Amino acid sequence: MDDANRAGAHLTVDLNALAANYAFLKSQLADDTVCAAVVKADAYGLGLEPVALRLAHSGCNSFFVALIDEAISLRSLLTEHNQKADIFLLNGVENGSESEIHQFGITPVLNSLAEIERWSSYAKQNGGCKAVLHLDTGMSRLGLDSRELNIFSDKPELADGIDITYLMSHLACADDRTATKNKKQRDLFNQYRNRLGIKKASLANSAGILLGAKYHYDLVRPGAGIYGIQPIINEINSLSQVVNLKGKILQIRTVDTGETVGYGATYQTPRTSRLATVAVGYGDGYFRTLGNRGFGYIGKTRVPVVGRVSMDLITFDITDIPEHEVTPGTMVELIGPHYSADNLAADAGTIGYEVLTGLGARYSRNYIGSL
Amino acid sequence: MDDANRAGAHLTVDLNALAANYAFLKSQLADDTVCAAVVKADAYGLGLEPVALRLAHSGCNSFFVALIDEAISLRSLLTEHNQKADIFLLNGVENGSESEIHQFGITPVLNSLAEIERWSSYAKQNGGCKAVLHLDTGMSRLGLDSRELNIFSDKPELADGIDITYLMSHLACADDRTATKNKKQRDLFNQYRNRLGIKKASLANSAGILLGAKYHYDLVRPGAGIYGIQPIINEINSLSQVVNLKGKILQIRTVDTGETVGYGATYQTPRTSRLATVAVGYGDGYFRTLGNRGFGYIGKTRVPVVGRVSMDLITFDITDIPEHEVTPGTMVELIGPHYSADNLAADAGTIGYEVLTGLGARYSRNYIGSL
Repeated sequence: MDDANRAGAHLTVDLNALAANYAFLKSQLADDTVCAAVVKADAYGLGLEPVALRLAHSGCNSFFVALIDEAISLRSLLTEHNQKADIFLLNGVENGSESEIHQFGITPVLNSLAEIERWSSYAKQNGGCKAVLHLDTGMSRLGLDSRELNIFSDKPELADGIDITYLMSHLACADDRTATKNKKQRDLFNQYRNRLGIKKASLANSAGILLGAKYHYDLVRPGAGIYGIQPIINEINSLSQVVNLKGKILQIRTVDTGETVGYGATYQTPRTSRLATVAVGYGDGYFRTLGNRGFGYIGKTRVPVVGRVSMDLITFDITDIPEHEVTPGTMVELIGPHYSADNLAADAGTIGYEVLTGLGARYSRNYIGSL
Repeated sequence: MDDANRAGAHLTVDLNALAANYAFLKSQLADDTVCAAVVKADAYGLGLEPVALRLAHSGCNSFFVALIDEAISLRSLLTEHNQKADIFLLNGVENGSESEIHQFGITPVLNSLAEIERWSSYAKQNGGCKAVLHLDTGMSRLGLDSRELNIFSDKPELADGIDITYLMSHLACADDRTATKNKKQRDLFNQYRNRLGIKKASLANSAGILLGAKYHYDLVRPGAGIYGIQPIINEINSLSQVVNLKGKILQIRTVDTGETVGYGATYQTPRTSRLATVAVGYGDGYFRTLGNRGFGYIGKTRVPVVGRVSMDLITFDITDIPEHEVTPGTMVELIGPHYSADNLAADAGTIGYEVLTGLGARYSRNYIGSL
């Protein structure tokens, strides 16, 4: 058996769709706005190497990651493939990380006064230290708060030696076009920019791009949209689906009315039913909350998950599928054209992002399109 | 920086606790009952190699996995370390997998008539083919249903050439000591055993072991209990905690009353608050459902998650922790002595098993105790 046949499920990542999504997002921008790509968390679970290389070959020359390990991996990968790019490190300059950040040509995002002072101290001794300065405008997560901003504004020499290439902030509610917080954050961001006298700026994620040009500034940082996740709720998703996941049927059984299915016997068959057991479970990131709530597709027919999701198995009611159309070995669409990662997420009570980052290690992985 | 310092969180797996749990479960059994270990899904997310080797060195010589890839990896690993063991493959004999199963000395669990016929056909030509025969008694997931059992019972020659070493079934509600389904399944299992005239049998998972000797038969298959997950609900967990997870504080901020935290601005500070942002998120398997519901511990003080969980970040309200006790770099207990994987799971609306299998790839991993 080859690797794909041995696996219980096949995950396909469409790099052409990914590149098309990047191109679509870039097409929303003015020509001189930089369209970076967020590739943290192993490129949202889809594989840092193929994703970053395809984006680099599509003209993307700026990437954001969360952890220094991710930044170093990305730098090594790009160098190996003769690609140059700016790599921005969202989690900032931790104590002891300065020389590695510098050595690998990483641009840290400075989130606090302590990080500014740390990086400045290193920069004054070593030179050539860029940074992005992060101001919090309403996430209360990372970035200088108003108290720290006051101090920095009075003592700009705290950043001596640092070439601050962008001011940045992050939108809390960009996925909701009606949220008044979007404009509030933008206004506060503009006020901070004027106060600090630093012009170049970055505010928008994927959703922020779609909120319009006033949110674009000089650099945007889409993640979700590149991976096909719907950026704004309650709107039509203009992005292409990147992920396809198919699970293999191991066994089909006919059970009488009134039989129970799975752990805790939470599902009872309301009729004589045909059930298909598929070799995917929460151990593969197929969320347990999908028990009695999720769906798969066989051809164009929707089949419901019945009973709880097990670690390695899920059971679908396939009574409505003609017997000759399905056998052990038939693949069930778990994420695909009929049921997107966003659809699966909605039924699981979460968001598409978590579906992607949860995609399991046991799937056989296949990439469509060149790197 | 070393790997551990670069990571946003440290996962520690206590192999001594794991071995103690295995010994405890084994101590519940008669001397001649085999205590196998379930190590599917990368040993419940804790690492197949260290877990299987430590168990093998603790006297465990029977292992269960779900996928053929897992079985092959385990066989290679054990052989490399001069360990012999029976490896049981729960997902059975797929078409085309026969020779690999045989070559690697794997004992398949036969879940259907089709699998019996497939393995018999191979066995008659090649010899030396063992198997476990799986009868469904109430999971409706894998295993022969009553229709298939009738056919097999009338034509036992369907299994010609196969050495059936055990009959097995699986309990649906063993985690609930009061569930009447447990005895029903056991009675049905006994009836099937008598009918087929195959004596050696296996029914119990960890919870089944704790249901008492009538559920033990000749081989038990604990998983959860070995990893410290509470097997039976609403009882005291006599097992040792195996997993410890600590997340690093990146930044601490003071925010005024009425500020909002995180995506969607779902949390508003009811007082002037000190917030700590920790470098862990749902991209690490820290479930998004823990937003505004989960807890961490700093020392002995409980700190609540406030706002939504982001992909790479969570925010705790640390107002109750004295300022001098916490700085960026301080580690917050996310799973540990004050807050077990089961506690975290309950707050996330799931079970400890899913917490373990979801443990992320970005954590630095450290093992306590020898292999």
